[in-house]
Amino acid sequence: MKALRFENKELKLAEISKPNFKDEVLVRVLKSGICNTDLEIVKGYANFKGTIGHEFVGVVEEAAGAPALVGKRVVGEINAGCGVCARCVKNDSRHCPARTVLGIVGRDGAHAEFLNLPSKNLFKVPETVSNEQAVFVEPLAAAFGITEQVEILPDTRVAVIGDGKLGNLCAQSLALKSRNVFLIGKHREKLSLVEKRNIETVLLEKVKTLTRDFDVVVEASSSESGFDLALDLLKPRGKLVLKSTFHGEAKWQAWRVVVDEITIVGSRCGRFAPALELLKNRQIDVESLISEELSLSDGVKAMKRAAQKGVMKVILSITNV
Amino acid sequence: MKALRFENKELKLAEISKPNFKDEVLVRVLKSGICNTDLEIVKGYANFKGTIGHEFVGVVEEAAGAPALVGKRVVGEINAGCGVCARCVKNDSRHCPARTVLGIVGRDGAHAEFLNLPSKNLFKVPETVSNEQAVFVEPLAAAFGITEQVEILPDTRVAVIGDGKLGNLCAQSLALKSRNVFLIGKHREKLSLVEKRNIETVLLEKVKTLTRDFDVVVEASSSESGFDLALDLLKPRGKLVLKSTFHGEAKWQAWRVVVDEITIVGSRCGRFAPALELLKNRQIDVESLISEELSLSDGVKAMKRAAQKGVMKVILSITNV
Repeated sequence: MKALRFENKELKLAEISKPNFKDEVLVRVLKSGICNTDLEIVKGYANFKGTIGHEFVGVVEEAAGAPALVGKRVVGEINAGCGVCARCVKNDSRHCPARTVLGIVGRDGAHAEFLNLPSKNLFKVPETVSNEQAVFVEPLAAAFGITEQVEILPDTRVAVIGDGKLGNLCAQSLALKSRNVFLIGKHREKLSLVEKRNIETVLLEKVKTLTRDFDVVVEASSSESGFDLALDLLKPRGKLVLKSTFHGEAKWQAWRVVVDEITIVGSRCGRFAPALELLKNRQIDVESLISEELSLSDGVKAMKRAAQKGVMKVILSITNV
Repeated sequence: MKALRFENKELKLAEISKPNFKDEVLVRVLKSGICNTDLEIVKGYANFKGTIGHEFVGVVEEAAGAPALVGKRVVGEINAGCGVCARCVKNDSRHCPARTVLGIVGRDGAHAEFLNLPSKNLFKVPETVSNEQAVFVEPLAAAFGITEQVEILPDTRVAVIGDGKLGNLCAQSLALKSRNVFLIGKHREKLSLVEKRNIETVLLEKVKTLTRDFDVVVEASSSESGFDLALDLLKPRGKLVLKSTFHGEAKWQAWRVVVDEITIVGSRCGRFAPALELLKNRQIDVESLISEELSLSDGVKAMKRAAQKGVMKVILSITNV
């Protein structure tokens, strides 16, 4: 099968054999989405080698332990735990120390014709949710997961820093809970995508017009300066949600966090069930985030496109059904 | 009056006039304590100029608006708010953006014969609490304040990094709530101070014997490496309490906080009332932390002593009554 792989510090399309973990489900991938984490991996993040990609929608081809899944359209949680450790026993395989993560840690990913995942990782996609929408379930789950980590009430003043894909989904998710959500970014056209969603938008160059009275700031810009800006916007005892997993060491003024008694909440993944529900109910607009759709054969080119300025989500079309 | 002042980048004992804010209380200082923050200020922290010192016990000399306080032995909350802003109205002058802070921000401090504070900042000291104990109310309030920010249950696994004064008080405070408290430090003799208090002690060189399963880690070492060590000890979704206000910029691997979904809680000051109660009930041992007591005239020497390796609390004896 074809797979987009990162090996020997090189990204290339390769012909490899189908994955064959017999105790897992074999999924034929329909479409996959390119995430910033894919771009970071190609820069060295997580030291990953293998097939990249972790956002996908597919159809179950084989499922030895769960025959009812065969033929179903599915999306999949990307963390697969060992099943026996203290975290897995508590149903938290997302933090299993021995976990593999689809296309990120020790497990071939989704930019390929087929992938393997345990059956319990898979979620059926409601009929009314399109393949293009379903590709967004993973990042939307991660964005909406913030609302399960931090209390967001209708009057909570929230700022999201970063007008990229993740910032957009965070702002839309938070705007379902609060009527005081601001999205801050550098690109007028990216900011305009959320303007119909009850979200105020602020160009970075005008950020000084905002007062320092936010209860919650989400850092989703993947840039080091986003952290300092977050501290400039937060009121004392406010909460800073960290979403970006940029590679490398950043500098920070830890004393500012102490003096203002800020709480920083690291936030990575979220649950798939609520994200599927949001898409089914059309509460989140993901279609407007799609910049381009290319075939898997053009995977290397698609990754280059995804890294270009102004580009939002690039989708790989893998199997046409 | 005599005062220990930091001016023109120089620490010296000076003769200055008594403070005279007529709408505040005049306190004759009996004893004051030298804190690491004093040592940081002399290195440039907070850009403070004036009389340093913020841990004290004294006797009220004049109190125009609160005559019942005259002659009473008191300790004092160090933050004085503007009284009218949104934070002050919510009784949170600790985070008033226009606040002054005794000996730290815009207000002469406690290493002097007299100081001024608003009457509402003052707390009477119970008779059974000695002057030496009372000097510890401010740092103990800051340490015990952690238990009001983070839930600590009897089974919560807690590690405190740093065997100095603050780390010691944090470990003792947390051991009142949990039976699983570890204090980690470099100095066998400092660690031994808490060994009777139901606290496990671990020399830094043996820290690798600890497994990565702490629910809460308190960073009180004032060293950059303490932060990385905290991340090495915390289980996923654990809480890192930041207590150190070291000057300057540190490096951090923000992605570790995101991947493990760590919560970082900045923690500065605490309430005085519970701290006084703990000392009155003899639930916290502070006497063993006193390394030396010098007179205010020897203030410069006392600051040098406080900065020396192996030295814990240095107390300035100011007025003998």
